[in-house]
Amino acid sequence: MKVNIKDVAREAGVSMSTVSRVLNNNYPVKAETKKRVEDAIEKLNFSPNVLARSLVNQNTKTIGVVAPSIDNLFFPTVIKEIEHILRKNDYSIYLCDTDDKASEEINYIKSLLGRQVDGIISIDPKTENMKNGFYEDISKTIPLVCINGYNKDIKCNFVLNDEVSGSIQAMEHLIALGHKNIFFIRGEKSYSYDLKENVYIESLKKHKLLRNKKIINIGHGNSNETVENTMNIIYSKLKKNVKFPVAFFCCNDLIALGVMNACKKSELHVPNDVSIIGFDNILISNIIEPKLTTVDQNMYLLGEKSANMILDIIKNKDNNLKRVQLNTKLIIRNSCKKVI
Amino acid sequence: MKVNIKDVAREAGVSMSTVSRVLNNNYPVKAETKKRVEDAIEKLNFSPNVLARSLVNQNTKTIGVVAPSIDNLFFPTVIKEIEHILRKNDYSIYLCDTDDKASEEINYIKSLLGRQVDGIISIDPKTENMKNGFYEDISKTIPLVCINGYNKDIKCNFVLNDEVSGSIQAMEHLIALGHKNIFFIRGEKSYSYDLKENVYIESLKKHKLLRNKKIINIGHGNSNETVENTMNIIYSKLKKNVKFPVAFFCCNDLIALGVMNACKKSELHVPNDVSIIGFDNILISNIIEPKLTTVDQNMYLLGEKSANMILDIIKNKDNNLKRVQLNTKLIIRNSCKKVI
Repeated sequence: MKVNIKDVAREAGVSMSTVSRVLNNNYPVKAETKKRVEDAIEKLNFSPNVLARSLVNQNTKTIGVVAPSIDNLFFPTVIKEIEHILRKNDYSIYLCDTDDKASEEINYIKSLLGRQVDGIISIDPKTENMKNGFYEDISKTIPLVCINGYNKDIKCNFVLNDEVSGSIQAMEHLIALGHKNIFFIRGEKSYSYDLKENVYIESLKKHKLLRNKKIINIGHGNSNETVENTMNIIYSKLKKNVKFPVAFFCCNDLIALGVMNACKKSELHVPNDVSIIGFDNILISNIIEPKLTTVDQNMYLLGEKSANMILDIIKNKDNNLKRVQLNTKLIIRNSCKKVI
Repeated sequence: MKVNIKDVAREAGVSMSTVSRVLNNNYPVKAETKKRVEDAIEKLNFSPNVLARSLVNQNTKTIGVVAPSIDNLFFPTVIKEIEHILRKNDYSIYLCDTDDKASEEINYIKSLLGRQVDGIISIDPKTENMKNGFYEDISKTIPLVCINGYNKDIKCNFVLNDEVSGSIQAMEHLIALGHKNIFFIRGEKSYSYDLKENVYIESLKKHKLLRNKKIINIGHGNSNETVENTMNIIYSKLKKNVKFPVAFFCCNDLIALGVMNACKKSELHVPNDVSIIGFDNILISNIIEPKLTTVDQNMYLLGEKSANMILDIIKNKDNNLKRVQLNTKLIIRNSCKKVI
C-alpha cells in the first residue's frame, strides 16, 4: 500500500495538519515534534504527493525528451547530460523513443502534452514534422527546445550543431588526400542527412568531381541493425567494379562502422585501399581498430545547452526565440590515407 | 498557452459538456457534432489532462526506470524494449540515471514514489540497497521489478540472468584452451561482479589453479571512462613481468575492450598472445576486430520480461513474489586461442 500523510501522522502521533506544516515549512513547529515527523517520514519511506501539488502549482516538474532511437549511443549520451542537469533542478524526464518514425514523434508529443509536462526537448526532430508546421504549433503552446534537425525559417528554439562546417572539413580532408572517388552514405529522411548530402555535392562541384557523384541510402540510420545493413549493402557494392582507392563519407559512425566491416569482409585494407570518415564521434569510433576519423558532435554540450535553455524559458517565461549554434570539428584518426 | 477544453468547445462551436462527452465516449453525440469536436481537437493540438484524470483514477500510467548509467549500451538496449512494451499499454516512463551511486538510487526511487508512479523497474540495483532492506521496503509499498542484482533471500520480484551458467562456460572455455594464467577483471561494488568473481575462484579451485588467482578492480565499470581506465590499468600491468600467453575474463564488454586496447598499445596480439572474454554481448563486441568472445545477456528479453511482469502485477494486484530466470550463453568469436 502507498503511504499517505495520514499514516505519517499516526506513526508520529501528531495531527495531519502538523505533518503538513513540517512538509510545507510554512508554520512554526516545535523542534522535537518536527523530529518525530521526520523520523516517521524516514521510517515509512513517505514521499509527498507531487501530483496533487502539481495541480495546485500548475507545474509538474517534468520534461519530455523525444529521440529517434536510444540504440545509437549518440542519443543516450545527449540524454544523460540533459537528465543530470534537469535532475539537479528537481525535474524528472519522460523518455520517448520514436523508433525513427515521424508519426510516433507526433503521438509521443501529444501524449506529453496530455501529461502536462512543463517543457519538451526533441532531439533530431523529423523534417516533415518541421515543414508541416507541427513543431511551430507545439512551440506556441509549451516551452520547446529542438536539438538539431531542419530549422530554416522555423519559429522554434534550437540548439544546433553547425554540421555544415564539420562536413566541409571532412570533404576537404578527403579531397586534400587526393581522393577523387568518394561515396556518400546516408540514411533515410532526416534533415541532417540532407544537409551533409548538400555539402557533399557542393564540394564535388567546387573540385570539378561532380561526375563522380555516388550516393547510397542504407535505410534506417539509427538502429541496432544499421551496422549490419550498411555492411551488406556496401559489401555487395564493393564486389562490383569499384575503382580503388575509394573513400566513404558516412552520415554517422554506425554507418561508418558498417562500411569498415564490409571492407574487412571483402579483405580490403582500411586505410590503404579504403578511406572512411564518420560523423558523431561516439565512444565506439575511438575504440575500434583502426580508430575512426570522424566529426565531433559535442554530445555533452548539446545536452547541457538544451537543458539550460529549457530551464531558462520555463523560469523566465521568455517567449523570444532562442538559437545556440555549436561548431563541429573533424577529428583526424587512422581511417583515411593519402592517395599515392 | 496550453489549450483547454474551453478552447476546444469555442473552436467547435459546442458546449464544454459536449466536448467532454466526445472525449469520454460516455453519452451519444451526433456524428456531425462529433466530427466538429474532433477537428477542433486536431486543429488546436489539444490533449486531455492526464494529470487530473490520474488523481481521480488513482493511477498515473507512469513507470520509473532506474539504471546505473545509460552510457553503457547494455542499459539503453534493455530500456528501449521496456519503453516500447509499456508504451503500447499507454504507460510513459521516467528515466533515472544514478551514475552508479547507491545514494542516488535511493534518492531517485523516493522521488518516483513522490510522483505516484504505478511501478518501478530497477536495473542492476546496488547490492548495499538490497542488503540494507531498502528494496524490500519499497516492494511492500509499490509494484517493483528488479533486473539482475543481489537477490539471495531478497523478497522482491526479479527478472534474472543466470550469470553463473555463462560465467562457468567462459572459464571452462579458457581452461579447455589450455590457459593457466587467467586474470579476472571487475568493477567496483555490484552483485554481478561478486557473482562472477566467485565462479572465477571456484573454477580455479576445481582445476587446481588457485595459486594463479589474479583479480584486478578497475573502478567504475559502467561509464564512458571504463574503456580508457581499464586500458591504462592493464597497460601498466602488461609492462611488468606477465607470463604469456595470458587470458582475461572480464565482467563486461567495455572492460574487455579496454583490455583489448591495452594489448594493442603494448603491441600484443589478440588472440595469439592474449585471450579475452567479455560479458553482455553489446553491439560493439560484434563490430570490433577481432570480434569479441563474450557471454550473451539477453538484453531485449530482460526488457520484455520485466515490462510484462510489472504490467501483470499492476493489472492483477498480485502480491506473490515472482522470479524469472534466463539462461546466459557463451558466444565464441575470435578473441581467444588455444595455448600451444
